[in-house]
Amino acid sequence: MDGAHETLGMVAEETLDPSDWADVQTLSHRIVDDAVAYLRDVRDRPVWQEMPGDVKAFFTAPLPRSPASLADVYGEVAEKVMPYPMGNIHPRFWSWYMGSSNLAGALGDFLAAIQGSNLGGGNHAAALVDGQVVNWCKEMLGFPASASGTLVSGGSMANIIGLTVARNTKAGINVREHGVAAIEKPLRFYGSDQIHSCHRKAMEALGLGNQALRRIPTDASLRIDIGALRAAIAEDRKAGFKPACVIGNAGTVNTGAIDSLQVLAKLAHEEDLWFHVDGCIGALIAIAPQNAHRVAGIKWADSIALDPHKWLHAPFEAGCALVRDALAHRNTFAVTPEYLESAPRGLASGQWLHDYGMQTTRGFRALKVWMALKEHGIEKFGRLIDQNIAQAGYLAELIVDEPLLELVVPPTINIVCFRCRPGDMTGATLKAFNTEIMLRLQEQGIAALSDTTVRGEHCLRVAITNHRTRREDLDLLVREVVRLVREMGKPGAASS
Amino acid sequence: MDGAHETLGMVAEETLDPSDWADVQTLSHRIVDDAVAYLRDVRDRPVWQEMPGDVKAFFTAPLPRSPASLADVYGEVAEKVMPYPMGNIHPRFWSWYMGSSNLAGALGDFLAAIQGSNLGGGNHAAALVDGQVVNWCKEMLGFPASASGTLVSGGSMANIIGLTVARNTKAGINVREHGVAAIEKPLRFYGSDQIHSCHRKAMEALGLGNQALRRIPTDASLRIDIGALRAAIAEDRKAGFKPACVIGNAGTVNTGAIDSLQVLAKLAHEEDLWFHVDGCIGALIAIAPQNAHRVAGIKWADSIALDPHKWLHAPFEAGCALVRDALAHRNTFAVTPEYLESAPRGLASGQWLHDYGMQTTRGFRALKVWMALKEHGIEKFGRLIDQNIAQAGYLAELIVDEPLLELVVPPTINIVCFRCRPGDMTGATLKAFNTEIMLRLQEQGIAALSDTTVRGEHCLRVAITNHRTRREDLDLLVREVVRLVREMGKPGAASS
Ligand SMILES: Cc1ncc(COP(=O)(O)O)c(C=O)c1O
Ligand SMILES: Cc1ncc(COP(=O)(O)O)c(C=O)c1O
Repeated sequence: MDGAHETLGMVAEETLDPSDWADVQTLSHRIVDDAVAYLRDVRDRPVWQEMPGDVKAFFTAPLPRSPASLADVYGEVAEKVMPYPMGNIHPRFWSWYMGSSNLAGALGDFLAAIQGSNLGGGNHAAALVDGQVVNWCKEMLGFPASASGTLVSGGSMANIIGLTVARNTKAGINVREHGVAAIEKPLRFYGSDQIHSCHRKAMEALGLGNQALRRIPTDASLRIDIGALRAAIAEDRKAGFKPACVIGNAGTVNTGAIDSLQVLAKLAHEEDLWFHVDGCIGALIAIAPQNAHRVAGIKWADSIALDPHKWLHAPFEAGCALVRDALAHRNTFAVTPEYLESAPRGLASGQWLHDYGMQTTRGFRALKVWMALKEHGIEKFGRLIDQNIAQAGYLAELIVDEPLLELVVPPTINIVCFRCRPGDMTGATLKAFNTEIMLRLQEQGIAALSDTTVRGEHCLRVAITNHRTRREDLDLLVREVVRLVREMGKPGAASS
Repeated sequence: MDGAHETLGMVAEETLDPSDWADVQTLSHRIVDDAVAYLRDVRDRPVWQEMPGDVKAFFTAPLPRSPASLADVYGEVAEKVMPYPMGNIHPRFWSWYMGSSNLAGALGDFLAAIQGSNLGGGNHAAALVDGQVVNWCKEMLGFPASASGTLVSGGSMANIIGLTVARNTKAGINVREHGVAAIEKPLRFYGSDQIHSCHRKAMEALGLGNQALRRIPTDASLRIDIGALRAAIAEDRKAGFKPACVIGNAGTVNTGAIDSLQVLAKLAHEEDLWFHVDGCIGALIAIAPQNAHRVAGIKWADSIALDPHKWLHAPFEAGCALVRDALAHRNTFAVTPEYLESAPRGLASGQWLHDYGMQTTRGFRALKVWMALKEHGIEKFGRLIDQNIAQAGYLAELIVDEPLLELVVPPTINIVCFRCRPGDMTGATLKAFNTEIMLRLQEQGIAALSDTTVRGEHCLRVAITNHRTRREDLDLLVREVVRLVREMGKPGAASS
């Protein structure tokens, strides 16, 4: 093509493409070199550090008007962003619940952005990769090939997808047209009192309301109490509600408790309820040889939320919803406006993937999952899950052996809840003391834990979803916690 | 650290990290070299091509059990994925409505995945970048600094966010607790008959139902008919409904029509309605000097959906919802479970960003937007929007000048709807003929258009959201369409 575009029209035509490709190529080499070093040396850096004031101030600048070289922009990222991470790629990050990313996944995100394809659907390779990853998710969980699924932004959205299909299927009316207010008997959903907050948000978003989600008490192991569940269902039927859905936990966020999924499946069948499993934490245990038995019932679910950005360590974001009845799934979300009609051939002859969720445009998040699964093979991911669960058992033993520490809940899977208990501290004082330990561990860059409250007991919480954690890291954790307890216990060392 | 982790416990501890960092560094160089070449040479490749059967078959393989080298995995991506894209990074892709990505954005996605931070919130640099990008979005649209906002997966989710805040604010009860069925007078939402399908999906998801969204007829320019809107509101009030929200279009998907936003803002104020603007296509025209006047009223909205992955060309996914009343926004979504409590210092002392939407885990999508805005400056993005709109005007002129073609709707902004009209073809024959033209353009790799139906008239649709498009590409399009019309018009050349 000639260079006529430079002068055609009133002004020269511009583009976001670089004027010098060799230049950005050199810069890109520097960026990947830095990235490889960043991952390689992660263990030598603090897990987290406070940002200095000037770094914080830097991010308050207004909208940039004029251009800057990409090299300068990258310089700012390298100096101001990369040194101050959340910390979850570090071997001693065990806060909340998240994965720790991986290099193949990061390259996958880069390549997805370079190819730029829109996964709303269509007839192109990315759409096939997306479908293949969904199929692999079914395979991992023992779900039938005839089931459907969709990759979404994370576990929260995966749960919303499942609960939306449950709502629409059980409503008994055309709820898409007429809304929730037209449902004859108000729907009731059930989950344990350990259920993740995203279910409350889902119930609220779906217009069912938080009160339509009954929290059922849990047994000593923090699993849903089946008797209490049966009683609640019976009570609700009598009161004129329609019991519609039970949500089973395959791994609760507080302690990793796994509800009796087989029993729930049976109960759901008997009571004509939709059986949704929140498997964001634990569904993938199905691929871990030593622990798979713990989630054996999951394959009987009507829908499952799982989270490749947790135990498959996909860089954020990657969640997945699976639905046994593919038609019910599609009937919940599909619309075909005039500007999105399928064509018999060409680009628009593929499936519309947006017919299975709330997004229209969808990114190529499948690629990062695909590349990492191909590189490592599913067997290794299974071993890594077993490894994390064994590490949690190891940590629990260390805690039990240490007189200054107390195990609050014995771990079922990879979450350990404990507290420091120097002397006879109780109540608010004990909570403040433990919180201070948690904060100093963070501030000194040693380890990132979080805290929670289980049955009214405040505790520190170690969630090991981390492919970089070694047992020596857990040794170090216990050593450092004990050091801090002693340090803070000394006269004159205030506890906050 | 010593190598003790290799032998501690029953088995050696494994990780997803590479055993040889130098190896992956070399591979990463190759990947970025290929990526730079992929973008540099995009103009020389077909905009789209059909996948051969063996490529399609390749993506049906079951879950990989054993490992493969990352180099081999990349080899498969290079051979099987990259040559068969959606096509939207190509200068002659004008289907549906999407951006065309950019290199800085792709590097941003890579770096975000390397750092791996979770944007659920917390006190770390990525959270500040996220907040800064939201602030920049407010600045671009003339929204007050006191407004809130959140980056989401795309325009569909950004619209859902706005409509959820609208629903909860106007419900007159605590709809989060009690659900939509407890609302005294059923809510009604309004939008034009040109509204995007994601609003229907939003109404359905929110439990309001599709019928609670009244489609108001449009005027000759496909903008909402204000008189008809007023009449519908009055009628609904009389019938016992509560008019709650009007959705204005800043750029409809069919033709780019922009509703009279100032008039809608005034009407919403008078009628006590929430005023939401779907600005996925057109909100960003606010930064384009020659066309900003077209969306002047947008700053009066209560909430706005905009879409950085369209006219800012961020790689997918990046949408943004802005809400004028930050408290109303937070009150719609915030929950604080015991395992996500804030801390006075440390990692958990930042804001919880998940309090502004439906996700818990959130990815660092801000970085790609931040890097591209820094590199190019907002003024250039504004010029590129003006450029696309001027190009659409240019194409419309070419079409008007060509006897075989007919402009179906004169473009307001960057969307051109036209059809080929050889001889006296009408109805289904004409539609089939035009569809065939569209398919041949795709199949021959020349250009990707899509089709739609406006006021019952089927047409081909050219949506120019593309920083690589030049006027010469539009010349070529018209030339090729005319060639195909002639070719297909010849005796013996069937039209489908
Ligand atoms: C049990 C459970 N369900 C759902 C979620 C939400 O997943 P996401 O953060 O990916 O949205 C989490 C997050 O930790 C979780 O632990
Ligand atoms: C007017 C309008 N609104 C909303 C959307 C949905 O945006 P997204 O595809 O980012 O979800 C689109 C998509 O093209 C659109 O054109």
